[in-house]
Amino acid sequence: MGRVYDRVALIGLGLIAGSMSLAMREGGLAGEIVGYARSPETRATAREIGLVDRVVETAAEAAEGADLIVLAVPVGAMGAVAAEIAPFLKPGATVTDVGSVKRAVVEAVAPHIPAGVHFVPGHPLAGTEHSGPRSGFASLFRNRWWLLTPVEGSDPEAVARLAGLVRAMGANVEEMDAAHHDLVLAVTSHTPHLIAYTMVGVADHLKRVTESEIIKYSAAGFRDFTRIAASDPTMWRDVFLQNKDAVLDILGRFTEELFVLQRAIRMGDGAHLHDYFTRTRAIRRGIIEAGQDTAAPDFGRSQTPAKDA
Amino acid sequence: MGRVYDRVALIGLGLIAGSMSLAMREGGLAGEIVGYARSPETRATAREIGLVDRVVETAAEAAEGADLIVLAVPVGAMGAVAAEIAPFLKPGATVTDVGSVKRAVVEAVAPHIPAGVHFVPGHPLAGTEHSGPRSGFASLFRNRWWLLTPVEGSDPEAVARLAGLVRAMGANVEEMDAAHHDLVLAVTSHTPHLIAYTMVGVADHLKRVTESEIIKYSAAGFRDFTRIAASDPTMWRDVFLQNKDAVLDILGRFTEELFVLQRAIRMGDGAHLHDYFTRTRAIRRGIIEAGQDTAAPDFGRSQTPAKDA
Repeated sequence: MGRVYDRVALIGLGLIAGSMSLAMREGGLAGEIVGYARSPETRATAREIGLVDRVVETAAEAAEGADLIVLAVPVGAMGAVAAEIAPFLKPGATVTDVGSVKRAVVEAVAPHIPAGVHFVPGHPLAGTEHSGPRSGFASLFRNRWWLLTPVEGSDPEAVARLAGLVRAMGANVEEMDAAHHDLVLAVTSHTPHLIAYTMVGVADHLKRVTESEIIKYSAAGFRDFTRIAASDPTMWRDVFLQNKDAVLDILGRFTEELFVLQRAIRMGDGAHLHDYFTRTRAIRRGIIEAGQDTAAPDFGRSQTPAKDA
Repeated sequence: MGRVYDRVALIGLGLIAGSMSLAMREGGLAGEIVGYARSPETRATAREIGLVDRVVETAAEAAEGADLIVLAVPVGAMGAVAAEIAPFLKPGATVTDVGSVKRAVVEAVAPHIPAGVHFVPGHPLAGTEHSGPRSGFASLFRNRWWLLTPVEGSDPEAVARLAGLVRAMGANVEEMDAAHHDLVLAVTSHTPHLIAYTMVGVADHLKRVTESEIIKYSAAGFRDFTRIAASDPTMWRDVFLQNKDAVLDILGRFTEELFVLQRAIRMGDGAHLHDYFTRTRAIRRGIIEAGQDTAAPDFGRSQTPAKDA
C-alpha cells in the first residue's frame, strides 16, 4: 500500500518494535524509521544489525519531528517516556503504544499528550517467548489481532491511518474501549500466564521429583506451561501490577472453580468431572473453527511465522 | 528388528491401541494383531479401516492364546477387563496396560493375573487431543517416553521383551516404581490438565466477555490451555479419581503458590513477581536443551508426527 508515515519513531527496541521495523521496511510503509532504547547494549545491537534506519541517544531525539511515535517499553515505563518526549512532539503527530494493558497506559500517558497530537493506544496480540533486539521478524503480526483502544475525542482520521499501517503489516484490527480490553486480556492471556508461571514454580520446588525428571517427562502437558512461563519477566511483572483489578477478578473466579473440581476429586464425584471436561471441549472446537489455531504455538520457540490454519 | 510377539491382543481400540497396531504393523513386530472394543461402533470402524488383523466380539476371545495382551481402556475399567480375561490367559503370556496412572491399575489388575502370566504395567507419554479408532498413527510414540513400572517379582525377561517392542515402535523406555510414576505424572501432566480445564471453564462462565471474543483473542495464551482441555473426558475423569492422592498433593502446593503470587499482585510487590518469573525461565531452558521441545505440541491438533527438536 506504500508509505503511511514519513517518519516513525520506535521507543524501545525489543521483539515488538523490532518486528514492526522489519514489517514496515518490507512493506515500504515508513519513510524513515528512527529507534531508541534505554540500554546502550540494545542500541549497539540495533545499530550492528541495522534494525532501524537510525538509532539515536534519547527518546526525545527519536520523537522530534516524527509522524508516528510508538511506545514499545514495559507498561510501567510508559508514563515517564511520555513525559520525556511530550515537549518534542510535532503537531498532528500520532502517539501509540503496544502495551498489554490499556487502562493504566491511558492513565499514565494521556495527561502528557499536548493538544494537537493524537493518542491512539494499541496492543498487538502477538509474541514469542524470545525478547530483545535480535528477536524480531517481519511476519510476527501476520493474521494476528491488533487491538486499538481510542480514547474519548480521538481523531477518527488518525485512528484510521494507524489502523491502515497495522493492516499493512498483516494484522487484523479491532477497536474496543480500554476497560473491556483489560478484562478480555485478563481472561485470554494474563491469568493463563500467571497460572503457568505458578505451575512451573511448583515443579521447581518439589523435592521428591527431580528437575531432570520434570524436564524429561515434560511433554505430557507441562511443557506447554513452561513455554508461556518463559516470557519476559519485566513485561509480565508490569502487566500484573497494571491490570491488577481484572486479573484479581478472574483469579478469584479461577480459584473458586478449581476448588469445586478439587472437591469433586476428593469426594470421588466422577459425574461432575466428566460433565465439566465435556463442556470445555466445545470452546476448543470454536477456536479451531475460528481459524485461531495454528501449527506454531504463540509463545512458541520458533521464530517462523504462524501458518494460517 | 522383526517379530517380537506372535499374537498381540489389544483390548480397547482408541488412539493408543490404534497407534500401537499401526506401529507394530509397520515394523513387522507382531505375527497377528487381534482387537476388541466394548462399543459395537468402534468395532465396526476398526473392521472398516482394517485397524487390526482381526476384530473379535469379547475381550476374552481377544486374550485367548495371545502372547501379549494390552489393556488400553480407561483406567477405571482395567480391573473389570482383567477379571474377564484372566481365565483365558495363556501361561507365559505378558499383560501390560497403557493407563496414565499406575498404582491404581496395579491394585485393580494384579490380583486377577494368574501364576505363570507376567504383568508389566506401562504408560506411553504420548497423545493428541483426538480419540477413537480413527485417531491413531504409526509414529505417535517416536522419540516419546514409555514408562514401565514392573511389580515385585516381575520376570526380567518378560520386561525386557516388552521394552524391546516399545523401543521398536520408536519410544524411549524408562523403569520406575508405580508410586513415583504417579507423583511425576501428577506434576508434569495431571495437575496441568486440571488447571487448563479450570481456566477454560472460567472463560465459559464469564458473562461480560463473550465466547466469540474468547475464541477470537485466544492466541494470546488461552489457546494453549484449550488444547490440553480438549482431551477425552472419560480418560481424564478416571485419571483424577485414580491418582487422587498425588493430584491433591500437587494441587495443594499449586494453590499455595498461586495465593502468594496473588498477594504480591494485590500488594504491588513487583520485586517478588520479577524474581519468580525469572526463575521459571531456567526450567524452560532445560526442556529445550533436553530436546523435549518439538514443533508439534503434544496435545496438538495435527496428527503428524512430532519432529525431533
